[in-house]
Amino acid sequence: MIRFNNDYNHTAHEKVLQAVMDTGTGSYGGYGEDEWCRKASDYIKNLVSCPEAAVYFLPGATQANFIVCAAALRPIESVICADSGHIFGHEAGSVENTGHKLIALPQREGKITAEQIAEEAAAYYDHGEKEYLTVPRMVYISFSTEWGTIYSKKEMQDISAVCRKYGMYLFVDGARMGYGLGAAENDMTLQDFAGLTDVFYIGGTKCGAMFGEALIVVNRDLQKGFRSYMKQNGAVLAKGWLLGLQFYTLLQEDLYFEITRQADVLAVHIREAFQAKGIPLYVESPTNQQFVLLTDDQMKQLEKNYIFEYMMKTPDGRNCVRFCTGWNTTREEADRLICDIAAL
Amino acid sequence: MIRFNNDYNHTAHEKVLQAVMDTGTGSYGGYGEDEWCRKASDYIKNLVSCPEAAVYFLPGATQANFIVCAAALRPIESVICADSGHIFGHEAGSVENTGHKLIALPQREGKITAEQIAEEAAAYYDHGEKEYLTVPRMVYISFSTEWGTIYSKKEMQDISAVCRKYGMYLFVDGARMGYGLGAAENDMTLQDFAGLTDVFYIGGTKCGAMFGEALIVVNRDLQKGFRSYMKQNGAVLAKGWLLGLQFYTLLQEDLYFEITRQADVLAVHIREAFQAKGIPLYVESPTNQQFVLLTDDQMKQLEKNYIFEYMMKTPDGRNCVRFCTGWNTTREEADRLICDIAAL
Amino acid sequence: MIRFNNDYNHTAHEKVLQAVMDTGTGSYGGYGEDEWCRKASDYIKNLVSCPEAAVYFLPGATQANFIVCAAALRPIESVICADSGHIFGHEAGSVENTGHKLIALPQREGKITAEQIAEEAAAYYDHGEKEYLTVPRMVYISFSTEWGTIYSKKEMQDISAVCRKYGMYLFVDGARMGYGLGAAENDMTLQDFAGLTDVFYIGGTKCGAMFGEALIVVNRDLQKGFRSYMKQNGAVLAKGWLLGLQFYTLLQEDLYFEITRQADVLAVHIREAFQAKGIPLYVESPTNQQFVLLTDDQMKQLEKNYIFEYMMKTPDGRNCVRFCTGWNTTREEADRLICDIAAL
Amino acid sequence: MIRFNNDYNHTAHEKVLQAVMDTGTGSYGGYGEDEWCRKASDYIKNLVSCPEAAVYFLPGATQANFIVCAAALRPIESVICADSGHIFGHEAGSVENTGHKLIALPQREGKITAEQIAEEAAAYYDHGEKEYLTVPRMVYISFSTEWGTIYSKKEMQDISAVCRKYGMYLFVDGARMGYGLGAAENDMTLQDFAGLTDVFYIGGTKCGAMFGEALIVVNRDLQKGFRSYMKQNGAVLAKGWLLGLQFYTLLQEDLYFEITRQADVLAVHIREAFQAKGIPLYVESPTNQQFVLLTDDQMKQLEKNYIFEYMMKTPDGRNCVRFCTGWNTTREEADRLICDIAAL
Repeated sequence: MIRFNNDYNHTAHEKVLQAVMDTGTGSYGGYGEDEWCRKASDYIKNLVSCPEAAVYFLPGATQANFIVCAAALRPIESVICADSGHIFGHEAGSVENTGHKLIALPQREGKITAEQIAEEAAAYYDHGEKEYLTVPRMVYISFSTEWGTIYSKKEMQDISAVCRKYGMYLFVDGARMGYGLGAAENDMTLQDFAGLTDVFYIGGTKCGAMFGEALIVVNRDLQKGFRSYMKQNGAVLAKGWLLGLQFYTLLQEDLYFEITRQADVLAVHIREAFQAKGIPLYVESPTNQQFVLLTDDQMKQLEKNYIFEYMMKTPDGRNCVRFCTGWNTTREEADRLICDIAAL
Repeated sequence: MIRFNNDYNHTAHEKVLQAVMDTGTGSYGGYGEDEWCRKASDYIKNLVSCPEAAVYFLPGATQANFIVCAAALRPIESVICADSGHIFGHEAGSVENTGHKLIALPQREGKITAEQIAEEAAAYYDHGEKEYLTVPRMVYISFSTEWGTIYSKKEMQDISAVCRKYGMYLFVDGARMGYGLGAAENDMTLQDFAGLTDVFYIGGTKCGAMFGEALIVVNRDLQKGFRSYMKQNGAVLAKGWLLGLQFYTLLQEDLYFEITRQADVLAVHIREAFQAKGIPLYVESPTNQQFVLLTDDQMKQLEKNYIFEYMMKTPDGRNCVRFCTGWNTTREEADRLICDIAAL
Repeated sequence: MIRFNNDYNHTAHEKVLQAVMDTGTGSYGGYGEDEWCRKASDYIKNLVSCPEAAVYFLPGATQANFIVCAAALRPIESVICADSGHIFGHEAGSVENTGHKLIALPQREGKITAEQIAEEAAAYYDHGEKEYLTVPRMVYISFSTEWGTIYSKKEMQDISAVCRKYGMYLFVDGARMGYGLGAAENDMTLQDFAGLTDVFYIGGTKCGAMFGEALIVVNRDLQKGFRSYMKQNGAVLAKGWLLGLQFYTLLQEDLYFEITRQADVLAVHIREAFQAKGIPLYVESPTNQQFVLLTDDQMKQLEKNYIFEYMMKTPDGRNCVRFCTGWNTTREEADRLICDIAAL
Repeated sequence: MIRFNNDYNHTAHEKVLQAVMDTGTGSYGGYGEDEWCRKASDYIKNLVSCPEAAVYFLPGATQANFIVCAAALRPIESVICADSGHIFGHEAGSVENTGHKLIALPQREGKITAEQIAEEAAAYYDHGEKEYLTVPRMVYISFSTEWGTIYSKKEMQDISAVCRKYGMYLFVDGARMGYGLGAAENDMTLQDFAGLTDVFYIGGTKCGAMFGEALIVVNRDLQKGFRSYMKQNGAVLAKGWLLGLQFYTLLQEDLYFEITRQADVLAVHIREAFQAKGIPLYVESPTNQQFVLLTDDQMKQLEKNYIFEYMMKTPDGRNCVRFCTGWNTTREEADRLICDIAAL
């Protein structure tokens, strides 16, 4: 059985594993106060061309998401997101648990638009303070999205402009940042993210690391006391060097970007195999997640050799499923799947 | 420089590192739904002789501490702890952040007594419901404590009896469980913990793992929905097999217990070296943490070759410092320190 | 100017005011431990035919709403409500502030159906525990609703059956209970509410009292420690007798029911005047709140003599406005408005 | 039986009651947007000589206390208070429930000193950011205190200076402000409070109103969105004019100050009667609360005609009890008690 069910079913890239192994005999300062975190932080600040940013390494993405909200928002402030957003439906109410309302806008292909956001913001801000409403103070989007799509630079600029107009923070969940940047049609760069957002992250867990997300806090107001928020919510790893080291290793010689781009390439090949077979896509994704509509028979056939993720039954009785490549997916694995698709 | 500042300055025991390395080519189910977590969970349930327990693997101890409180307590319920308790002074108010008051009792050598707990509980429970008070519903203690001491079986039985009398949960923070069990004078076993408490954990981070705590929830009421609490608070590791694997590896052939007992032995040697020199102890600890009172000169002398933790200035002008051995401390490192102590 | 903008623009019914005045020379026990609260509580338990219920008097409805949620739910549990529900859009995120997600279902005329609720519940409960989702544990509805409509007994029974099937609490916001019960087409009774729900309240603030809501907690599990939740959230009035006294006074000789029914009668007359004029209703309401669609001219005309509430602009450019009668509205005031509507 | 158990056992001063009665035929804007709130607010800003302050009227003191904390503090920030502080032991953990740690300092006669506060603040602020500690960001004191004592102007200036040095908010719980200001030895004024604190309140519930506290937010940063915090926590009264009206009425012709000063005078007479009898005081209070140590016999004797509050048993077997006068206490009631004390 070959796993195409997600992009976090392998431990880590071999270079990361080796780097961790190599620390076996050393000793380090605790809680992220070590040379690897410093080196990785400096490297990332340079990479995103933002020396005034602060970089924090957190073990996981759910932590990054709710801790940013907890640190940035006062109790009466709320977060605008897509109704497909990870924080809205996949994190057990973690943001509401910190006390904040989510305002979920209807997504299209996993995305929301600057127009939608502007309308929601205007409804609050353009009519005087209303004490019975929460204050929309942050916009949360994902790059790439839960449906594998990406925002163009123009779309990001428009969203950023709305946020700045209304004084709302823009937060980009980058759990799949590598796959988003690696898409053939992508025109965003990490520098663009640093320029357009207040806070975003470069995901490690799904992009070659054992675990870890590199959170880049551009807005200085959000940097204040941030490590205390991490500690308060259990996100300061005792052996923090494990996080810094992994990112430092992955970012050398563009390894991070190569392995995720390669996953995108394989995913698009797989998509094309489905399309060649006349199997409809649920959404047209340029990244490592591909969503297709299979008949029961097709699904049964593919389940013999592959593990993939069941999403839902569509009204017409088809099965929406996800095939997901990862940094670990080999050309051989993809080719074998492509053959089997052709043989359906 | 040799680090005696804490027990989490080395990555992991070589067997753990090798086991992680060996997973490099495999693929696994996510979020703790994998064979390693299952094997480790079964192994631990057997080890603690409690088949009805549920075992959860969390990345860190702060997470274990506040998530247990969040999952167990209703908003009006509070936690009794020592005023030296880790949750009271070292976790950035994480328990209060979940909405619960801590009732801190004065510690002696890091411990609180059944009598103190009974008095506090009686003040609430024996005089009718008082709506302006919180309900003491959990007792939190550490084994070994923040001052390196341990509770005897008799003390644990007495505390457990008070908790059961008043319907309070007993929760044992076992971040340093290995060092507690390894103490020469210890008479508690893991089975005793399973029998006397509602929930406790076997710490990995400080006892040979890269990271991770094995939480054993004995009380069935506390098991309900526990994984959702973990997810809500960002403690479900995507690559959960890394946690199960580490514990499974450490527990084979009693490795976990051996390496921590060895650290205790070395720590006691170091303590004896201080005592032989007439250097007073701040507290008499049988475990890997040793607290001594140094003059400024003695401190300066030892700082030349060793890193150790400064605790505080005492009223008489001495310096209370901690020398901490770990699973990684070698006999050579300890001997060298002992020599240097003798030469003070 | 005559106020038809809401049902809380007069201080209190004259009998209530007199009763408060009459307490001027007495002295009472604090925090709801007094004879008036006892008498009112006994009276209400008898009225709803539920001797095992507990009755609590709270100063306001927002307090009642979020405190019931805080007391009933564990952090991972969420509340199903209509997207027009008062807790979803009019209470500044108070429920989310206690840590709980709201699952808002699309309303029709202010109501949600048993089918909608069942579908949402089934999505969670019928497919095994999913740790990344919140647990829908409570259903919140209003009687009468924010759009003036009411649930029939059949609808309430169906909703109650779904709640019981899935172990979800049913909570009825009765801020306008009097107006709901007073509707000509209503077939629900207070006994029915006691029989079909876990907790509901009889609103005072909008129904003749100065302030206050009588919360009836039918489910014994929810009674535990409830006064502590009230205290913790600032809802235990020091001079609690003011609350008990008001309800006791209002409920004598059915005063509460008469004054609210009368308001419904007048509201329907006003509605009929609009209909006679061909002015469309936004929703057909049998209670004291009437929502109509006015042209700009009509609105300007009526604004000369009346204060009413602007709701929103409709897509076709009309103005949805609310005319609200209250326990205080006189026949003369209604008649004058009816005349002016006829003259539009 | 005459009640000396507290200062909130009578409904309200007759002028307040009459004023409420007089609103019976009027109609008003909701939620504090009415002429009475405006008039009272303007009156108070003038009274405290602070035109830039914002005045908010809340139904109760527990609400005022926890809402100020919720509005002012970020999740990692904590509150320094006395261990006798109302928020620490009498409000069911309401502040912790909003997520904030309380740092309770040992009180003396209900008070804490600038020195104590400075020491606590210095421990945090003077040694670099420590991510595992909460940030002490507010100091909460009461005037008069829970033991009836008051802070002198010099003490208030010293505390205020420490707060400003470290950037901590100073918040004064004024539930018994009238009694504090009315003490013979008092040298503070309301203008002093406006000058030295960030936020304080003038209590109504215990000082002649039916209910209500007038919160004066001096610090502009704390004014932002404050009404939303009130709404989110259920403290925006629908019929807000009831609050404005009561304060406006009480403050006319110094009624508020006269009735509370009179209560202080009577309380001191009662204290002197106890002293004349050789009955020891628990604390020497210049305000309306008097704490004395009675033998069992003395207590039994006085319980025949008076209701007073039992505090605790002292180590030597005496009973610490509170005799509390109020704005409603008559000279005749006090004289009768004084006679009975003399006859003990």
